[in-house]
Amino acid sequence: MAVAIALSERGRGLSTPNPNVGCLIVKDGRVVGRGWTQKGGRPHAEAQALDEAMDRARGATAYVTLEPCFHLSPRGPRCADLMVRAGVRRVVIALRDPDPRTDGQGAAWLRKRGIAVEMGLMAEEAAAAMCGFVLRQTLGRPAVTLKLGLSLDGRIALSDGSSRWITGPDARAHAHLERARHDAILVGGGTLRADAPRLDVRLAGLEDRSPRRLLLSHGDAPEGWERIATPEDIAALAHVDHLLVEGGARTAAAFLRADLVDRLLLYRAPIVIGKGLAGIGDIGLTDLAEAHGRWRLSDERRLGHDRLEVYGRSRKA
Amino acid sequence: MAVAIALSERGRGLSTPNPNVGCLIVKDGRVVGRGWTQKGGRPHAEAQALDEAMDRARGATAYVTLEPCFHLSPRGPRCADLMVRAGVRRVVIALRDPDPRTDGQGAAWLRKRGIAVEMGLMAEEAAAAMCGFVLRQTLGRPAVTLKLGLSLDGRIALSDGSSRWITGPDARAHAHLERARHDAILVGGGTLRADAPRLDVRLAGLEDRSPRRLLLSHGDAPEGWERIATPEDIAALAHVDHLLVEGGARTAAAFLRADLVDRLLLYRAPIVIGKGLAGIGDIGLTDLAEAHGRWRLSDERRLGHDRLEVYGRSRKA
Repeated sequence: MAVAIALSERGRGLSTPNPNVGCLIVKDGRVVGRGWTQKGGRPHAEAQALDEAMDRARGATAYVTLEPCFHLSPRGPRCADLMVRAGVRRVVIALRDPDPRTDGQGAAWLRKRGIAVEMGLMAEEAAAAMCGFVLRQTLGRPAVTLKLGLSLDGRIALSDGSSRWITGPDARAHAHLERARHDAILVGGGTLRADAPRLDVRLAGLEDRSPRRLLLSHGDAPEGWERIATPEDIAALAHVDHLLVEGGARTAAAFLRADLVDRLLLYRAPIVIGKGLAGIGDIGLTDLAEAHGRWRLSDERRLGHDRLEVYGRSRKA
Repeated sequence: MAVAIALSERGRGLSTPNPNVGCLIVKDGRVVGRGWTQKGGRPHAEAQALDEAMDRARGATAYVTLEPCFHLSPRGPRCADLMVRAGVRRVVIALRDPDPRTDGQGAAWLRKRGIAVEMGLMAEEAAAAMCGFVLRQTLGRPAVTLKLGLSLDGRIALSDGSSRWITGPDARAHAHLERARHDAILVGGGTLRADAPRLDVRLAGLEDRSPRRLLLSHGDAPEGWERIATPEDIAALAHVDHLLVEGGARTAAAFLRADLVDRLLLYRAPIVIGKGLAGIGDIGLTDLAEAHGRWRLSDERRLGHDRLEVYGRSRKA
């Protein structure tokens, strides 16, 4: 299942309007098919993996990060049907599909056709990989990552606004990779005016993965940009399941104040800036006790001289 | 030698005016004596270790973090002499004593008396453990640690100054342990007025390790405090080899601006504060390029929900 989840990551930022599912088909201890939801949502991961497996799928086990779909669509076949027709013997599912058109019916259909079904293996990890889809289903909005490039003392620029460079090339390359994993990137009007960022993916081979560009502003958006007026407006964005917020401090604060940040991506350089611009503006905090218990470290690594820390929003189950 | 260095840490913050040396005596693969420089500098580590070893020191190997002293003192015997008299066969030394009264003469004396001497084993680690003594010898001032308790976004308090609590009990206990490892603690006038900190060591069994209290201020110091007017004045402080600077932002910035910080001790809580007080004020930085290459991560660990990061000042050799 861990491999299937890794495969699902390949579709992150590409697969909307469909969830970025991963699928692995194993026969006699050998991998015979691998799939992940393709650009625009089709083919589905299961279809692609079964396609690769061909008749080796007969009697095999399929690992799939989301319950195979059961609903009829003009865009393609039902994956539960495909599994039956291919002769798969056992289907291991991480996450039950919360979409009411499937929601257990895919698994029930498989069982009715004599296929062994297990559900729940690594469900939490699969949900994290498909967080945009899950939040869209549960909270009706995309998953939001807030990215900051910081000094040890939390500055994102000198007082004059200069921020080239705080982090080194490895951290910046990683940040571009993160861009490719999102459907859209958002900045505020101040950042747009000050930095005129391109927000594209400048990594060899991934140039066409550059996401849509969004602006949080009450003014007009320039050519090639879409505008929203408030953080809450992200709920209405079509085909955006994974949103990356890149700054500046007022925009970051606006999303935090609205409790619309699910993940903090902190690139921290081993430098001290002292007087300078803070990364996060007023989030309306008046009591320190309320700040605690909201964030949990989920990943950390060294990137050259810098350090990446990833924090996830703690939510009561 | 690693054990001898660990022993030397026990004297840190206690041994001035003498260096915090550690000594281990090994005979036939067994430890027969352990010593570290005691409070106020006497007895020396070697004297204590030989005392414990008694006649088992004959034919033994002594590991000592600093070259045994050779100069005559009214306060105690010469350690090189003690080694010879005890019949030690081999002495392994980490660091040559830069004090001109010894500076190689201790080792030469041992060799003349037929003792095998090796010098340089783990010299860097030993120098780090005795950094206050080494900097006193090389730069004529104590080793300075700057401690900060920070949020993810580099804040040390809300805008109204409230900072209880940013870090949790484990981090605060660790910070008290660090106090016990320093000869003196310094804060600025603003912190004294705002927080009236006690700066004592509130750890069971270590209450009597509370260091001297220093104030960086142009005004008067209250009862129980000593005052200095500028960061550079630390060079004139008697019996202070290890100094801990605890804030606030202007004091931290003053020491950083004077390039008088050797070690950053950052306790970072997994919280976002947003608008609030920064940990470090204006350090006079005008070019980001100049901020780089100064700090290197030397230690990191989790302390409850918080993270400790220790950065050492990079110096050209």
